[in-house]
Amino acid sequence: MIIAVIGAGECTPEVVRLAEEVGRRLAERGAILICGGLGGVMEAACRGAKGAGGTTVGVLPGTNPGDANPYVDIPIATGMGQARNVIVVASAQATIAVGGGYGTLSEIGHARKLGIPVVGLETWNLKKEGYTGIMEAQSPAEAVERAIAWARKR
Amino acid sequence: MIIAVIGAGECTPEVVRLAEEVGRRLAERGAILICGGLGGVMEAACRGAKGAGGTTVGVLPGTNPGDANPYVDIPIATGMGQARNVIVVASAQATIAVGGGYGTLSEIGHARKLGIPVVGLETWNLKKEGYTGIMEAQSPAEAVERAIAWARKR
Amino acid sequence: MIIAVIGAGECTPEVVRLAEEVGRRLAERGAILICGGLGGVMEAACRGAKGAGGTTVGVLPGTNPGDANPYVDIPIATGMGQARNVIVVASAQATIAVGGGYGTLSEIGHARKLGIPVVGLETWNLKKEGYTGIMEAQSPAEAVERAIAWARKR
Amino acid sequence: MIIAVIGAGECTPEVVRLAEEVGRRLAERGAILICGGLGGVMEAACRGAKGAGGTTVGVLPGTNPGDANPYVDIPIATGMGQARNVIVVASAQATIAVGGGYGTLSEIGHARKLGIPVVGLETWNLKKEGYTGIMEAQSPAEAVERAIAWARKR
Repeated sequence: MIIAVIGAGECTPEVVRLAEEVGRRLAERGAILICGGLGGVMEAACRGAKGAGGTTVGVLPGTNPGDANPYVDIPIATGMGQARNVIVVASAQATIAVGGGYGTLSEIGHARKLGIPVVGLETWNLKKEGYTGIMEAQSPAEAVERAIAWARKR
Repeated sequence: MIIAVIGAGECTPEVVRLAEEVGRRLAERGAILICGGLGGVMEAACRGAKGAGGTTVGVLPGTNPGDANPYVDIPIATGMGQARNVIVVASAQATIAVGGGYGTLSEIGHARKLGIPVVGLETWNLKKEGYTGIMEAQSPAEAVERAIAWARKR
Repeated sequence: MIIAVIGAGECTPEVVRLAEEVGRRLAERGAILICGGLGGVMEAACRGAKGAGGTTVGVLPGTNPGDANPYVDIPIATGMGQARNVIVVASAQATIAVGGGYGTLSEIGHARKLGIPVVGLETWNLKKEGYTGIMEAQSPAEAVERAIAWARKR
Repeated sequence: MIIAVIGAGECTPEVVRLAEEVGRRLAERGAILICGGLGGVMEAACRGAKGAGGTTVGVLPGTNPGDANPYVDIPIATGMGQARNVIVVASAQATIAVGGGYGTLSEIGHARKLGIPVVGLETWNLKKEGYTGIMEAQSPAEAVERAIAWARKR
């Protein structure tokens, strides 16, 4: 099972704490973590996962695998800039958004377009008639459990 | 000046009417229209633009230029699926979202991440502290004037 | 009809001359020229096309439409680096390679994989049993006529 | 260390045998194998690697991770068609081409453009003045040793 964690490269300490716990809990549940491979939420989630013995994949915007944060086991160098956002979510069975900016917003759109569920923690509030959008969770534990439950159904 | 019109491949007659008027007004103002090249909002906007003598570019998800709607002058075949959404907005100086689903949501995210303004007509309601999101317009005329004003500033 | 001209961003004066004549002849035959939008062969071909009143499309590796050479009418900003090479050839009914380096080699591979014919002028010598590779032309005039003949069959 | 193995989705039994031995030897040397994730050379190389306890990454053209061959540990779903070829080579420190068709040709071009060395086994014969092209090896053992030696220099 591969779960994506998406969020911004710069974020508050509170969001870092949430992302790190999400990463740790995913690893404890045996899920491989995939993310954008850079800093902020991505680095925090990878650090949490590695601390719990998990495996991490970082899908980078640039062509240099060395751009990955130090907690990425497998750097994927795309050279495709923002288009790599599609790959992060398409490779996962479910996605957890933690905080996040406009890049995260694009990833939510891509995931939902592909029918991949997105669980949110302190992320975008999205509304449009006829669209379910994302599922809000109140804690990293809830986010991870919901993401895993959805991933198992797919 | 190139302006992107983004929106879903399937939409209501009211949204078709809005998109067609947006396309027409963009052509009247001399802007080249770029879009995803398929049906729904994309086709309506292109039809409007062609009816007013404009030029249209369709950035397609597939590898077959023949997939473009009949109002596309220049079909760009990417073969990159949803990742083509990045190209639609990156190539424009401003973006107008008309209605729209999850693909449109991803395009809004990509545009804003690149610093490209998005004017919205009956589209997503987005909120997150610290992010300006999109500018809502009340009519195609207002949407086009605001998009052109923004494009000129860039 | 859209014809791609592919070749390196840096090239000899002789290759510039060939590319410019290819661009001019394509415009005279009414074909839209698509290329990678930058310098060298790309700029020479666009300059030739514009001198004969043609239309040019430049599919850029970066996110800034302003990176296009001054002879590009419609800059497409992909932000996808080398992956934009796929788009250049997929959007065309035939391809003409003039000189060229490793990027051109990748474009030849992508074009042929898609079944798009490639006519070569002083370009790569490719051999592998079971593969037809590219068609060598002896002059810009021959290259353009062969490309147009192939494009009409598709 | 990540090494890419590139080659066609359909190939002769002899090429399958070469690819499988390349995969096995890469795993024995501790390298992670990255490839396009589908059949033919890709599947043979992954099977060889898994038989020797290695780790395999498959960068798929489609959006469905389930398209990967059964020997892929980590499927990366790009949805980008042929453009995924860039990712396969950009993520590696060196590349080994085994047999191969036009897709492989594009990957050779992308790798060399990025400065990534390519070792070839019964693959394309490429010539152009001023370009070193690829290094031909006579056996899987030689191919793997040369690729690892190059990867260490980078």
